[in-house]
Amino acid sequence: MQEFTKFPTKTGRRSLSRSISQSSTDSYSSAASYTDSSDDEVSPREKQQTNSKGSSNFCVKNIKQAEFGRREIEIAEQDMSALISLRKRAQGEKPLAGAKIVGCTHITAQTAVLIETLCALGAQCRWSACNIYSTQNEVAAALAEAGVAVFAWKGESEDDFWWCIDRCVNMDGWQANMILDDGGDLTHWVYKKYPNVFKKIRGIVEESVTGVHRLYQLSKAGKLCVPAMNVNDSVTKQKFDNLYCCRESILDGLKRTTDVMFGGKQVVVCGYGEVGKGCCAALKALGAIVYITEIDPICALQACMDGFRVVKLNEVIRQVDVVITCTGNKNVVTREHLDRMKNSCIVCNMGHSNTEIDVTSLRTPELTWERVRSQVDHVIWPDGKRVVLLAEGRLLNLSCSTVPTFVLSITATTQALALIELYNAPEGRYKQDVYLLPKKMDEYVASLHLPSFDAHLTELTDDQAKYLGLNKNGPFKPNYYRY
Amino acid sequence: MQEFTKFPTKTGRRSLSRSISQSSTDSYSSAASYTDSSDDEVSPREKQQTNSKGSSNFCVKNIKQAEFGRREIEIAEQDMSALISLRKRAQGEKPLAGAKIVGCTHITAQTAVLIETLCALGAQCRWSACNIYSTQNEVAAALAEAGVAVFAWKGESEDDFWWCIDRCVNMDGWQANMILDDGGDLTHWVYKKYPNVFKKIRGIVEESVTGVHRLYQLSKAGKLCVPAMNVNDSVTKQKFDNLYCCRESILDGLKRTTDVMFGGKQVVVCGYGEVGKGCCAALKALGAIVYITEIDPICALQACMDGFRVVKLNEVIRQVDVVITCTGNKNVVTREHLDRMKNSCIVCNMGHSNTEIDVTSLRTPELTWERVRSQVDHVIWPDGKRVVLLAEGRLLNLSCSTVPTFVLSITATTQALALIELYNAPEGRYKQDVYLLPKKMDEYVASLHLPSFDAHLTELTDDQAKYLGLNKNGPFKPNYYRY
Amino acid sequence: MQEFTKFPTKTGRRSLSRSISQSSTDSYSSAASYTDSSDDEVSPREKQQTNSKGSSNFCVKNIKQAEFGRREIEIAEQDMSALISLRKRAQGEKPLAGAKIVGCTHITAQTAVLIETLCALGAQCRWSACNIYSTQNEVAAALAEAGVAVFAWKGESEDDFWWCIDRCVNMDGWQANMILDDGGDLTHWVYKKYPNVFKKIRGIVEESVTGVHRLYQLSKAGKLCVPAMNVNDSVTKQKFDNLYCCRESILDGLKRTTDVMFGGKQVVVCGYGEVGKGCCAALKALGAIVYITEIDPICALQACMDGFRVVKLNEVIRQVDVVITCTGNKNVVTREHLDRMKNSCIVCNMGHSNTEIDVTSLRTPELTWERVRSQVDHVIWPDGKRVVLLAEGRLLNLSCSTVPTFVLSITATTQALALIELYNAPEGRYKQDVYLLPKKMDEYVASLHLPSFDAHLTELTDDQAKYLGLNKNGPFKPNYYRY
Amino acid sequence: MQEFTKFPTKTGRRSLSRSISQSSTDSYSSAASYTDSSDDEVSPREKQQTNSKGSSNFCVKNIKQAEFGRREIEIAEQDMSALISLRKRAQGEKPLAGAKIVGCTHITAQTAVLIETLCALGAQCRWSACNIYSTQNEVAAALAEAGVAVFAWKGESEDDFWWCIDRCVNMDGWQANMILDDGGDLTHWVYKKYPNVFKKIRGIVEESVTGVHRLYQLSKAGKLCVPAMNVNDSVTKQKFDNLYCCRESILDGLKRTTDVMFGGKQVVVCGYGEVGKGCCAALKALGAIVYITEIDPICALQACMDGFRVVKLNEVIRQVDVVITCTGNKNVVTREHLDRMKNSCIVCNMGHSNTEIDVTSLRTPELTWERVRSQVDHVIWPDGKRVVLLAEGRLLNLSCSTVPTFVLSITATTQALALIELYNAPEGRYKQDVYLLPKKMDEYVASLHLPSFDAHLTELTDDQAKYLGLNKNGPFKPNYYRY
Repeated sequence: MQEFTKFPTKTGRRSLSRSISQSSTDSYSSAASYTDSSDDEVSPREKQQTNSKGSSNFCVKNIKQAEFGRREIEIAEQDMSALISLRKRAQGEKPLAGAKIVGCTHITAQTAVLIETLCALGAQCRWSACNIYSTQNEVAAALAEAGVAVFAWKGESEDDFWWCIDRCVNMDGWQANMILDDGGDLTHWVYKKYPNVFKKIRGIVEESVTGVHRLYQLSKAGKLCVPAMNVNDSVTKQKFDNLYCCRESILDGLKRTTDVMFGGKQVVVCGYGEVGKGCCAALKALGAIVYITEIDPICALQACMDGFRVVKLNEVIRQVDVVITCTGNKNVVTREHLDRMKNSCIVCNMGHSNTEIDVTSLRTPELTWERVRSQVDHVIWPDGKRVVLLAEGRLLNLSCSTVPTFVLSITATTQALALIELYNAPEGRYKQDVYLLPKKMDEYVASLHLPSFDAHLTELTDDQAKYLGLNKNGPFKPNYYRY
Repeated sequence: MQEFTKFPTKTGRRSLSRSISQSSTDSYSSAASYTDSSDDEVSPREKQQTNSKGSSNFCVKNIKQAEFGRREIEIAEQDMSALISLRKRAQGEKPLAGAKIVGCTHITAQTAVLIETLCALGAQCRWSACNIYSTQNEVAAALAEAGVAVFAWKGESEDDFWWCIDRCVNMDGWQANMILDDGGDLTHWVYKKYPNVFKKIRGIVEESVTGVHRLYQLSKAGKLCVPAMNVNDSVTKQKFDNLYCCRESILDGLKRTTDVMFGGKQVVVCGYGEVGKGCCAALKALGAIVYITEIDPICALQACMDGFRVVKLNEVIRQVDVVITCTGNKNVVTREHLDRMKNSCIVCNMGHSNTEIDVTSLRTPELTWERVRSQVDHVIWPDGKRVVLLAEGRLLNLSCSTVPTFVLSITATTQALALIELYNAPEGRYKQDVYLLPKKMDEYVASLHLPSFDAHLTELTDDQAKYLGLNKNGPFKPNYYRY
Repeated sequence: MQEFTKFPTKTGRRSLSRSISQSSTDSYSSAASYTDSSDDEVSPREKQQTNSKGSSNFCVKNIKQAEFGRREIEIAEQDMSALISLRKRAQGEKPLAGAKIVGCTHITAQTAVLIETLCALGAQCRWSACNIYSTQNEVAAALAEAGVAVFAWKGESEDDFWWCIDRCVNMDGWQANMILDDGGDLTHWVYKKYPNVFKKIRGIVEESVTGVHRLYQLSKAGKLCVPAMNVNDSVTKQKFDNLYCCRESILDGLKRTTDVMFGGKQVVVCGYGEVGKGCCAALKALGAIVYITEIDPICALQACMDGFRVVKLNEVIRQVDVVITCTGNKNVVTREHLDRMKNSCIVCNMGHSNTEIDVTSLRTPELTWERVRSQVDHVIWPDGKRVVLLAEGRLLNLSCSTVPTFVLSITATTQALALIELYNAPEGRYKQDVYLLPKKMDEYVASLHLPSFDAHLTELTDDQAKYLGLNKNGPFKPNYYRY
Repeated sequence: MQEFTKFPTKTGRRSLSRSISQSSTDSYSSAASYTDSSDDEVSPREKQQTNSKGSSNFCVKNIKQAEFGRREIEIAEQDMSALISLRKRAQGEKPLAGAKIVGCTHITAQTAVLIETLCALGAQCRWSACNIYSTQNEVAAALAEAGVAVFAWKGESEDDFWWCIDRCVNMDGWQANMILDDGGDLTHWVYKKYPNVFKKIRGIVEESVTGVHRLYQLSKAGKLCVPAMNVNDSVTKQKFDNLYCCRESILDGLKRTTDVMFGGKQVVVCGYGEVGKGCCAALKALGAIVYITEIDPICALQACMDGFRVVKLNEVIRQVDVVITCTGNKNVVTREHLDRMKNSCIVCNMGHSNTEIDVTSLRTPELTWERVRSQVDHVIWPDGKRVVLLAEGRLLNLSCSTVPTFVLSITATTQALALIELYNAPEGRYKQDVYLLPKKMDEYVASLHLPSFDAHLTELTDDQAKYLGLNKNGPFKPNYYRY
């Protein structure tokens, strides 16, 4: 059992993480950032910066990029209408009035919309980045210009990282009473360094697998003196982060890196969980011939019924054009498999771990690596055979494509609702434990996103509600419902 | 709360039932039975019949149909290879040796394969029918000829029904120690009439929603002195009985009744649960334009992402060519909707209840009913408009199509495994309660069906199993996994 | 070269025929006829029958069935709104006033709608059946009751067949000036027996491959003294009779005969022309895994791009669950292939010829044939292996499913328009030759069917028409356009 | 009628062109070029460059980029195995021995594989670029290094353009006998400037719509004294350039520019020809809800049967999220439509002409244009509404995505075969006219591409060939076959 009190290094923490949403915005830095972190070698900690209202209560790369960042935020707002709608509905009553939120998330246009929503609902916010690379500097500048106390830039050192977190928490005359975390580092810092603050926190909202895992450990150890909400496992987030998001991004990731034609390609997808199901649906739809490998007979039976041949990897490895791992497992594609692939075979990973493809086994002297494009390596065998390795085996959709803003909107809306719920819950509703989001709130998040599709819900009549034994406003399904 | 001790009438029980599997074989009588129940007016109870080995330990319509029934059983065996495989694997060890099973299910070629499997594994079986209409007489004859004590025929009276059940239980020198039930009538009979037998039963296996509901009531009332297994809610059964089975049968049910062309038809499907999802997938694939109505925002959001417009029924009722209900709710299609439909609109029900379409509202003097084919009525408005009502609003796929044997194989295999588990479980593993099938057995049922697809599972290496924290033989997923 | 003057026997002619539309209504007799031809052994030729208006100018099985037949016609009218629309549009101007049409087609509810449309447009019609089995007796009765001179019944002898044709042509004081034919028998009869009538015919409309072939022969031989219209090769007819119709019917034909589950089934489809494309689209959509065999590299390349593996039959014959021929070729499935199929493999033919599967090779003593259902035979090998042969290798969709009325509407509308065109064409537009339908009329047929889908065409502006060099009313595509 | 003898300006010619293949490589410059044309301001015409073998018989941007270009060519070769296979099959017999080919095409890695194939088959080649922007400088360098006389660079002036062409043709002691052209400029130059050379040309191969149009004009005018091959209208090229290529590229083009999520998006596609069919198939498969506008009732009927609602643009313009034009027409999307679109609506063009969207109408003072990314403009209405315009209305798939190498392989293989055919045809087979590629060669091109898919053709037996009246080696279909 990992000791919660040990400081994880940034590297260590990232390698533990399996959270899509945490890593997801990694990609934003590479795909959608327009600013160059190399333009200026002075550390932001050493700069004197002031926004147009005269405040210096922030630390960002370059406050002058605020206008550009504002435009990015505005573009994001257009696809986050659920959050804007929540902002409008709750703005009058200010459900977060009095809330003092410290946050630690990726800092991107999408999270900026979340932060500004929290402010609009009455909260005071202080914010740092949960990843040393993922901050969009221009967005941080726009937040700072708008008065948010943000401490983050792209390319922080590890020392910078903890310094930024500390600056959020440690402020004279201001004491946080809510935590919004992504990965658990902020929670950990408050727990260890400011135990008196920690005890008075009214609620923690955590979205990552890693962070949730750490909270459950703390809870088991009897040290969690605060109610916490696990938003990672809500239905909408899971379906969007996995099934739908992968259906959207697998084609994009492959095209941007290799310009491959999908029609007629033979593809083997390892794993037919939600991620695999999403990838297969898209690939089959575009004319690829897809094979599945599975360890779980139930998922294998689903693959059969969905029209895919279920094979062992060895059976097809010589004939396939593309290999995609979606397992969460390690060493699914071994050196032996790689040795048997045909020339030009593309290999990539859509799963959780960086070790699904045994990339280490390819770092041997007889193989030549040739970087042909960003994120694309040709690994060349002595006989001239080339295997096309994408993103060095890291997550393809996070490295080589973008995540639709709509998907992030679902997560952000869930986080906002969880904060409102914990902050306003009557004494005793939540104890010192980790909670799943109530199904009714999951349904509410979904309902806020329906107008984007111009979708119109049907309401139960009183008579029907009685017949079904349901409340007209939901929840509509038992907890174990599989969707 | 329904009083468990009150005898439900056959009619009452059926109207309560929402079990697909219970009703499923209803259709078999109409679609696949080749024998005519009207050929002979003498009650089987009054006939003297003897099989070729001289036994009279049965009561069927006509023992002479045995050969024809045997052929039907053999045809069914070809699509139930999982059960045959289980038969072969376990035949040596006879895991049911000593088991004395009383059963009450539909009596069809498929259940005959189950019964004969139980016998092959060592059990003694006595069997009656759970539905007064669904018995395939020739199959019952074949079972009787093969030595099974079967008491069932098509067209039993209610008195016959209970007489048959009683003949199964009440036999000198033979005392049942296991119950396999579908609907709970047999269980109820033993519980009320033979309490001493009931106490010594080692296990009950129940597959229907109704029967499971009654067991939970008994359990709540503290009167269930026997462990019982709920096989209705196993993953494989649910997915096959709902999603896949409806995907297979919606087209068939519509074609057989109306010869409708699917291409370009506008269809509204009410409800996007598993049944709705199955129907929509098939209809969209064949070129229909599908609209969805939903009350649950999460299912509605899934419908959006899957490419369907989510509407209120009123928005599209004037324009659609087909209306299909899949809700489990009542009065989803009202007289008002029916009044607004266009000429030739087809209306049918794939859901659970017979009241999804308010058919009663159509029994008014100004409307003319015209039976144009079996299961097809034209309801004619004064202005000449015709609405095409299928199966009088009862379940389309059970009335107008057949259920693939493969689907029934999954249920039957699950039942057989549940019997083996309960019969062989060490003292104390199961208490006097209702249990869900252990996930590992659900996975085992799935694995037995993979060879039909020539599907090959991948095995975890020791190293991978350790990494994932899983046993190499499963179970592979947490209980809450959504598949 | 077949001698046109030789009388083909009915058998001989049918075996030559590859026309979908000709054979299509074959299925109607089996699937949709409610009358029993065996109820009455007196030949219609010997009966005295009179309709309610006192006319005896017809010869049908039983005039008393007229009311039932009328209802069938009314049901058909609901799906033939294009024809009804044409009837309404042209009714005022009576474009067929003066036309005296002899027709020889299948006599079904759908052709009745065509015949009555021709009458409504001003024509006088005399009609016989093009197939000795396909007449729906009740429909013929309804036509007779309505005053059409119809000579046809189900189960004609060959002598009856020619007698009926002759009765249509040979009538005192009435001389045909137009021919509508399906198969060429009527045309042939007039050509041989009534050369003086033939010379004065203003046009022949022929819809079958066989009939068209015979017209081209006549034309080549310089003996076609009448303009003829080949409606078989119009775009809309081809696409609907092949691609769309097969997409609709392959699932239906397989389900009705075998109740097979499609999900996960391995299917090989021989031939990827329009018929094969339609079958594959439907099967893949329902979860089957489909392999293709092809002789033509272009069609093979399309199959690849559409996501199908292109194989030789031998490569997959041992593993597939279903074999479907769509080639127009002979002996595509040989005894050798049949010997290698696995147990329970289903074999059927969706192509043109009855010889695609070498059924003859299965008529050997060591194989046992067992008829298990109508149209379903088990062929049993000495080792017990069973192959499931459907419709004895004849066309599955015509033997075991129905053709949507909408498809027949397209053909019937095309025939009606071709008659109008030929009857009204100015002298000299058509010479003594076989013509394809002008593209503009093909487009008009399509446009008449759009309202069924509530589809709204966009009109070109003057400016756009000029830019594209098109007439605003079409035709919109060059003749070689592939659609 | 355009006068062939008038020199079109480069601009004029490009705006006439509707050729996908011509324009297709436009995109390569933007999406796949790694070299920077701005690094060096000296005109290549003024540089002294020599390759490693001492030759100066070329003019490129920078011969030092040869190694990088060679790698690009090698990567392209991996997806052009049909051409490599042709190279290998014909290398021994050198079917182009003695051929002196002047070529004028895009100069990219893919055309380099073509050029080097022609050389390998025995030809001598001199090459220029058909577009002043599309040359991949590093590829031109690699060709020059390999000994090809190439005269081309990215960013030529119009004067440079004609200078390069002239340098290809005008060389002492070398006289071209074959022309490979894309657009007709080279052909025109030889025709006008070197009539004596023109007369002795043995054949012209032309791939673009524009060039083919010009050849037909020349032919009509009786001035084409050379046989020419129109490879633009071959089946394989058409299907790949339109249907399949658009199915592959529409998603890519939209994602790269807007990161839009497809699931649940309402999209209207104007035009349901091959381009529209390809776009719709991909969009529907990824969960979009697609509406169609059409002028042609036959295509409209196909859209209906394929499951799309056919509407007028005005009916849906207020509700859709994306508008895609695929018509070849002009002003399909007018300012009035644009005024009515909802906020954030994406508008783009996949058709042929740059005027499908009336972009000019958006250049008015009250609208603000904001360039938010490369190829992405927000056009902002006074009320704040933004319309997202892609590629300023130019072809999306050529501006914002790449064309799969496999597609280009089909065109290149067709060109090579056409050259071989014309060069080796016996006297008299081809006259002074424009020819379509013989179907047998179209089939041969297809067959060369089948090994990429590991597809195995079936061969006709003698008996079957006789039955079908076909040659065993093809051609297999009549010329009018629609595929």
